[in-house]
Amino acid sequence: MIRNQPLGGNQMPRFGGNASMMRLPVHDTAEGLDACFIGVPLDIGTSNRSGTRQGPRQIRAESCMLRPYNMATGAAPFDSLQVADVGDVALNTFDLKKSVALIEDAFDSVLKTGAVPLALGGDHTLTYPILRAIAKKHGPVALIHVDAHADVNDEMFGEKIAHGTPFRRSLEDGCLAADKVFQIGLRGTGYSPDDFNWSRRQGFTVIPAEDCWHTSLVPLMETIRQKIGDHPTYVSFDIDSLDPAFAPGTGTVEIGGLTIWQALEIIRGCRGLNVVGADLVEVSPPYDPSGNTALVGANLLYELLCVLPGVRYTDS
Amino acid sequence: MIRNQPLGGNQMPRFGGNASMMRLPVHDTAEGLDACFIGVPLDIGTSNRSGTRQGPRQIRAESCMLRPYNMATGAAPFDSLQVADVGDVALNTFDLKKSVALIEDAFDSVLKTGAVPLALGGDHTLTYPILRAIAKKHGPVALIHVDAHADVNDEMFGEKIAHGTPFRRSLEDGCLAADKVFQIGLRGTGYSPDDFNWSRRQGFTVIPAEDCWHTSLVPLMETIRQKIGDHPTYVSFDIDSLDPAFAPGTGTVEIGGLTIWQALEIIRGCRGLNVVGADLVEVSPPYDPSGNTALVGANLLYELLCVLPGVRYTDS
Amino acid sequence: MIRNQPLGGNQMPRFGGNASMMRLPVHDTAEGLDACFIGVPLDIGTSNRSGTRQGPRQIRAESCMLRPYNMATGAAPFDSLQVADVGDVALNTFDLKKSVALIEDAFDSVLKTGAVPLALGGDHTLTYPILRAIAKKHGPVALIHVDAHADVNDEMFGEKIAHGTPFRRSLEDGCLAADKVFQIGLRGTGYSPDDFNWSRRQGFTVIPAEDCWHTSLVPLMETIRQKIGDHPTYVSFDIDSLDPAFAPGTGTVEIGGLTIWQALEIIRGCRGLNVVGADLVEVSPPYDPSGNTALVGANLLYELLCVLPGVRYTDS
Amino acid sequence: MIRNQPLGGNQMPRFGGNASMMRLPVHDTAEGLDACFIGVPLDIGTSNRSGTRQGPRQIRAESCMLRPYNMATGAAPFDSLQVADVGDVALNTFDLKKSVALIEDAFDSVLKTGAVPLALGGDHTLTYPILRAIAKKHGPVALIHVDAHADVNDEMFGEKIAHGTPFRRSLEDGCLAADKVFQIGLRGTGYSPDDFNWSRRQGFTVIPAEDCWHTSLVPLMETIRQKIGDHPTYVSFDIDSLDPAFAPGTGTVEIGGLTIWQALEIIRGCRGLNVVGADLVEVSPPYDPSGNTALVGANLLYELLCVLPGVRYTDS
Amino acid sequence: MIRNQPLGGNQMPRFGGNASMMRLPVHDTAEGLDACFIGVPLDIGTSNRSGTRQGPRQIRAESCMLRPYNMATGAAPFDSLQVADVGDVALNTFDLKKSVALIEDAFDSVLKTGAVPLALGGDHTLTYPILRAIAKKHGPVALIHVDAHADVNDEMFGEKIAHGTPFRRSLEDGCLAADKVFQIGLRGTGYSPDDFNWSRRQGFTVIPAEDCWHTSLVPLMETIRQKIGDHPTYVSFDIDSLDPAFAPGTGTVEIGGLTIWQALEIIRGCRGLNVVGADLVEVSPPYDPSGNTALVGANLLYELLCVLPGVRYTDS
Amino acid sequence: MIRNQPLGGNQMPRFGGNASMMRLPVHDTAEGLDACFIGVPLDIGTSNRSGTRQGPRQIRAESCMLRPYNMATGAAPFDSLQVADVGDVALNTFDLKKSVALIEDAFDSVLKTGAVPLALGGDHTLTYPILRAIAKKHGPVALIHVDAHADVNDEMFGEKIAHGTPFRRSLEDGCLAADKVFQIGLRGTGYSPDDFNWSRRQGFTVIPAEDCWHTSLVPLMETIRQKIGDHPTYVSFDIDSLDPAFAPGTGTVEIGGLTIWQALEIIRGCRGLNVVGADLVEVSPPYDPSGNTALVGANLLYELLCVLPGVRYTDS
Repeated sequence: MIRNQPLGGNQMPRFGGNASMMRLPVHDTAEGLDACFIGVPLDIGTSNRSGTRQGPRQIRAESCMLRPYNMATGAAPFDSLQVADVGDVALNTFDLKKSVALIEDAFDSVLKTGAVPLALGGDHTLTYPILRAIAKKHGPVALIHVDAHADVNDEMFGEKIAHGTPFRRSLEDGCLAADKVFQIGLRGTGYSPDDFNWSRRQGFTVIPAEDCWHTSLVPLMETIRQKIGDHPTYVSFDIDSLDPAFAPGTGTVEIGGLTIWQALEIIRGCRGLNVVGADLVEVSPPYDPSGNTALVGANLLYELLCVLPGVRYTDS
Repeated sequence: MIRNQPLGGNQMPRFGGNASMMRLPVHDTAEGLDACFIGVPLDIGTSNRSGTRQGPRQIRAESCMLRPYNMATGAAPFDSLQVADVGDVALNTFDLKKSVALIEDAFDSVLKTGAVPLALGGDHTLTYPILRAIAKKHGPVALIHVDAHADVNDEMFGEKIAHGTPFRRSLEDGCLAADKVFQIGLRGTGYSPDDFNWSRRQGFTVIPAEDCWHTSLVPLMETIRQKIGDHPTYVSFDIDSLDPAFAPGTGTVEIGGLTIWQALEIIRGCRGLNVVGADLVEVSPPYDPSGNTALVGANLLYELLCVLPGVRYTDS
Repeated sequence: MIRNQPLGGNQMPRFGGNASMMRLPVHDTAEGLDACFIGVPLDIGTSNRSGTRQGPRQIRAESCMLRPYNMATGAAPFDSLQVADVGDVALNTFDLKKSVALIEDAFDSVLKTGAVPLALGGDHTLTYPILRAIAKKHGPVALIHVDAHADVNDEMFGEKIAHGTPFRRSLEDGCLAADKVFQIGLRGTGYSPDDFNWSRRQGFTVIPAEDCWHTSLVPLMETIRQKIGDHPTYVSFDIDSLDPAFAPGTGTVEIGGLTIWQALEIIRGCRGLNVVGADLVEVSPPYDPSGNTALVGANLLYELLCVLPGVRYTDS
Repeated sequence: MIRNQPLGGNQMPRFGGNASMMRLPVHDTAEGLDACFIGVPLDIGTSNRSGTRQGPRQIRAESCMLRPYNMATGAAPFDSLQVADVGDVALNTFDLKKSVALIEDAFDSVLKTGAVPLALGGDHTLTYPILRAIAKKHGPVALIHVDAHADVNDEMFGEKIAHGTPFRRSLEDGCLAADKVFQIGLRGTGYSPDDFNWSRRQGFTVIPAEDCWHTSLVPLMETIRQKIGDHPTYVSFDIDSLDPAFAPGTGTVEIGGLTIWQALEIIRGCRGLNVVGADLVEVSPPYDPSGNTALVGANLLYELLCVLPGVRYTDS
Repeated sequence: MIRNQPLGGNQMPRFGGNASMMRLPVHDTAEGLDACFIGVPLDIGTSNRSGTRQGPRQIRAESCMLRPYNMATGAAPFDSLQVADVGDVALNTFDLKKSVALIEDAFDSVLKTGAVPLALGGDHTLTYPILRAIAKKHGPVALIHVDAHADVNDEMFGEKIAHGTPFRRSLEDGCLAADKVFQIGLRGTGYSPDDFNWSRRQGFTVIPAEDCWHTSLVPLMETIRQKIGDHPTYVSFDIDSLDPAFAPGTGTVEIGGLTIWQALEIIRGCRGLNVVGADLVEVSPPYDPSGNTALVGANLLYELLCVLPGVRYTDS
Repeated sequence: MIRNQPLGGNQMPRFGGNASMMRLPVHDTAEGLDACFIGVPLDIGTSNRSGTRQGPRQIRAESCMLRPYNMATGAAPFDSLQVADVGDVALNTFDLKKSVALIEDAFDSVLKTGAVPLALGGDHTLTYPILRAIAKKHGPVALIHVDAHADVNDEMFGEKIAHGTPFRRSLEDGCLAADKVFQIGLRGTGYSPDDFNWSRRQGFTVIPAEDCWHTSLVPLMETIRQKIGDHPTYVSFDIDSLDPAFAPGTGTVEIGGLTIWQALEIIRGCRGLNVVGADLVEVSPPYDPSGNTALVGANLLYELLCVLPGVRYTDS
């Protein structure tokens, strides 16, 4: 079987060709795919700076640098999986609640094909409808949630749906296996200790950013893999988990965050888990003049692809 | 009576002091004011680039350059009117329809004090609830609508409320005196001729941008003043009416627009009209690296203040 | 026949969907098309600032604002022509002379299908191979060349091929009907009067920018149409013909240029000519932080499409 | 007693409301306050890039993200202290020496109310007059000075007053307890070893950046706390102490600096000291397109507030 | 005699070579020159945004595009005059009054060589000491002052020396022939009508921007030339005279300004006058992300060179 | 002997004076120098983003902050070596292969004077002709190559000369002592394991970025120094070796890179080696809005100067 391959730099200069994710073929649906990249250009769930609606387009544009093989880990995802870019969810930009329903529908459609979705955000509200779709198929999932914020508010400005509430909503809806939820990188200012303690009371494991400073996260991931085992697992990666030095282009910035090396250790540390879906959210191109935050996002999405079940690794 | 004055550059350097509109005092309400600046930090009604939620804050920051007296027209608004900055409408950023209701409530409150509101946008959706509030007080108003777009869509993505629909909604709700509606600067691409012809069928006067090229708009305003007479009049100024050379920082950009000299001719040409409210919308700071689009917006808001009824003019 | 249509904003938000030109379908070849958009991501022919290699991608991204119908002229190009985006020419980024040959081959292929090519540049070197391909099919063509520079150098740094030489090369190769060549917008500094007089000696008509100041170009275009008649005509539009106020994002900037209104008058004034190809060149996104130069380019390419033979106009 | 609270995101969206520090109430004076934020929009003391005059305004704008409670340390400053934003010092922008006198006067006024001042800079010249005011009240103080530069020049371009001289001037004026002065993060190029050795000869402790690489600064702060004891202490934090990866927007950039995690360790390590004033200087918004350097500054000012004497900590 | 020539693009690519003005040779003094470019990197006289200290360096960098011959006017300045870049005045960045003295000294030195100085600013304060030096040599001069502001304040923040006072100071010091002073482009907001009327009372001719809208300034310059005759004339060109569409990168922005075409008409209209010096001021690179404001400044300085007495014109 | 010194900040403000490297004197040739800075403004060898042609100019502009003495290491290079800026190589911007020959010629000329060249890039293609010139004089050299990429492709788009091939070409041409080649910082995506294994098979030592995470590189450099001994050594430092947090302004960005502290450890760790030449490449100013990537480049070039043989160190 000849699988889809990213368009190579020796066939078309990297700044040319269609600006799809990794310059992969664009498919209309996920039918026949093992994994797919799918955009969710949402920003009406943001509470501070907006602009994440431009995230999927810019992540795709900057992904043109990506080649097929992972030099560090030996992963060769395009030798083992059939992957494509299936475009964007057609959101209702004027109504967040309707958009949430549209996202859930779109991911239901992807999931019923058997393809593993990798979502390009878009603000973090989108994880809620994705987790609803995921749970319909896989039951309550383990969650590796990398973020500056716990996103477990009950309400924001009186609303149940916003980019600060998805994990409380998802838990309420039975999408999460609470004892297998890991929130990594939390930090910053809040309204009260309860901002993080609510998570702990549900059984989540909270790893504040401060616990990650000056150290490798390889041991942490070893522990997490042991606790999750082969449970279906979702990975939600908020780019603001990174310190703004590494990812300036985002909307609710908190200082003192994770490093990019830790981010790679986290994702590469997911190898062996039964990852059934993932997202990379909160890239806001208007606050990213060099384009490098989108480029970081594109790379992390590629790394997520590399740890999907079934990916072959060479002996590098 | 000592009226509020903008903080002068000889009392506090222009880059210092509180970043209120024109460095005026901030009042909690419009009580006792003749006119007020009021922010509406909305961007969830936008259909292309977002970022207008940052508009009011940036317009205020750049307004620090403004001094009290209008050198060109002789207007001395702070000698005649009591003016203040009354802050922002507390919007629901996660629900556009609820925000529309909140805006209407806020403007009801302002209007009942007798103050004339000058709104700092925010996306153009906000004009709909303002016109509803205005019409409750003044009945159907004349409208001078300066814009690249007619904003008379019936629906956008199936929604009745969005930044492309306010003037159809306002007409339906009886807020506009159709034969006294002037839409200046329309242009660009559309879905069909009906995008502008709908306006014409309602009795609006459409002045496409092309009719304004290479010419002064002083004669046009003379005609408009004659047609409106002393009817209560609202002015809605979308910054994208200007060619992007003059206002790059906005979200739905159309080329071939008005010049800044024409914009000033339009607003200064409103002198003598019974202006009962006005807005300046669609400034999107993330697309405005020099800050000058917000500065243009601040100046135009000041010029709108200068043509309010009751403003004294010196013999300059 | 159902023709390709730009993806509408009510089907997919403008910031979503595949970033093809006008969000049109992407075709592998020009087979079956009446006209096609084709990218030429070239910048190794530039003599000052580079970055035009990013031009096609950014023009496509900003073209998402474009709707199918031309409100000003009544042109409805997608009702009359089958149009698609056929992607980019696979250039050799490391060898300008080879790239020139690759461009000529690519346009030969397009032209033999009968489709009219509209090129997204890329630096102005690209017009030379396009004109070679065009002349093979149509013989020496009339040329409407809008630019700050004559681009008729014999050599640059000893080289015959560069972005300042295409029109001398094209004339030498018999691609141009010299008495039907119009160079509009020339200006700036040079090495000697001969920089423009060479053109005049070949029989070209030079219209310096200074002759265009403060005036409409409608009469000029009337004259040009009369002189060209129904001769096959190529339009080459260098974005630096515009004053940098209107198009800051380019590499060899000259002050005192054309206005955007004049640019529209020029292109709209080509209606009725037998336009057999066109290009829009020298958009350099790294010098265009707001994206608006690319947006201008996208609009002008759309206007060029609107004046192709066979486009139906409504009575607007 | 009801103390001032930052305006919450559930009352007003973060991008709305008055752009005061942390969206706190603005007071005319420090009367009745335990601590106050006060801006010093100075840049005429800078020797390389200017722009720090915009620092206070931008720090305030970006501080809108800050919530009242410190998730990492458990500090709840607004439960224990009465805090407000008291605006900016009215500087003489055209005369540095007069501005220095105006700053000293302004801080004399603040200090006599008993409020602890937290200054938003502004270039580092401002620390000299602040230390003069501080010393009048508290005598020679201990100093924690975090910076890339020692700022102990005798003269710059023949001048005694500039942003590279404040700590020599302050020592000469008897404002510093030399054996309790700690300069952390020094590095870069200089004129001679004496650039740092002068400090050492006065009894200051110099901790070059190189000594901080790859390590936590918690032990350093433990040592410093022991040496200072309960002596009145001033903290002067120059944002250029941070490596430019973490704080690009500043004027005299030196590579190889402190990390943001170390910055937080330094300030949080001041808990328990008798901090009588602090400043955060050298944020230059024109060199900070994302706004994140100002955001870092806002966060560090908040962290400084959290370590003031009297702040209550929850058991987090 | 072989005169200095700008380094040509066929000898060294435009982005290479020493970044002197027009890539001319750098001379230590003005000895032996007919005209010289001289930088004055001043911004401590600015009242709003700073950054003009970077003006000379950025103007030089962007001047690399300039070739020796003026295509529009036929001026060939380097065939007739010996011109060089004589570097920058060594200012005291920490003391405005001392800087003013240093500038006067530097221009005394230039003027005694007989070279005509063309100054690269820097903020407008610098014109005061230049005019003092000029008047010592030439007596009270005629003045063509192109600006948004009259710059005739008596004091700013109590100071006599600032960028808003140079022309009042110069008149007081006997440097100006009041009946031969023309202030073109004035506009904006002020404190009272007297902001411009003071000028008129001294005998200056004020041409507000509004009088220039929609028209060529060729007739105005004809009038001015007649009134000045062969009186020694100084030209002071503030880049903020231009509308910010044409020159966004400046500090005290006023909307509704001159066009670039008018700017060229003004300077080219000085041909025939006895120009004894000129300056181009207030370019602030930090607010000019594309570099084009500096490029406009570089071009206008070149145009000023072209109208110096003794420049030979070809019959173009 | 009085050696050239960087122009000091007390003689001329840092933002003034000629923008040569470190504000050193500009020499026409390297005659009489011990070391020289030389620019190579090349970007036509780049495969993704261009813009490195602006690198030398911007590195020089940002180098104005540098003072003569190295505070950390005690190096006083200008006390021991005669150093100057010898300007740029006059490249053929339109032909990469010819430019390669021009570079080789230029470095032949420098090397025959005995001066050690320190090259300001420019894209990495330039290292190939430099190494050819170096090997003619010194024979096959040891190489310390710091980079994200191995740059040992056989071809790119069918071409032998490009910025991804210099080290394969150099080895083929006998310029490198393969067992003394160290490639530090390699990472990212590739086409196959062979992208790095080819290097290993030639005998190069590959130190992937991942091996450097969370650690000091002082021990690595100790090992490298032992292996190289006193063999003539070239240092090629690609700015993209750094993580983009530290150097955003470059064209082929890879995440997870080296830190700036490690970069300094690498270069300072070269002290004692027989360094016969060095380059700093791939700074792309258009992607570097703050200027700080160029500033990093300027600092690293200074640090390279500090480790040249013959530099005197004080006992700091």
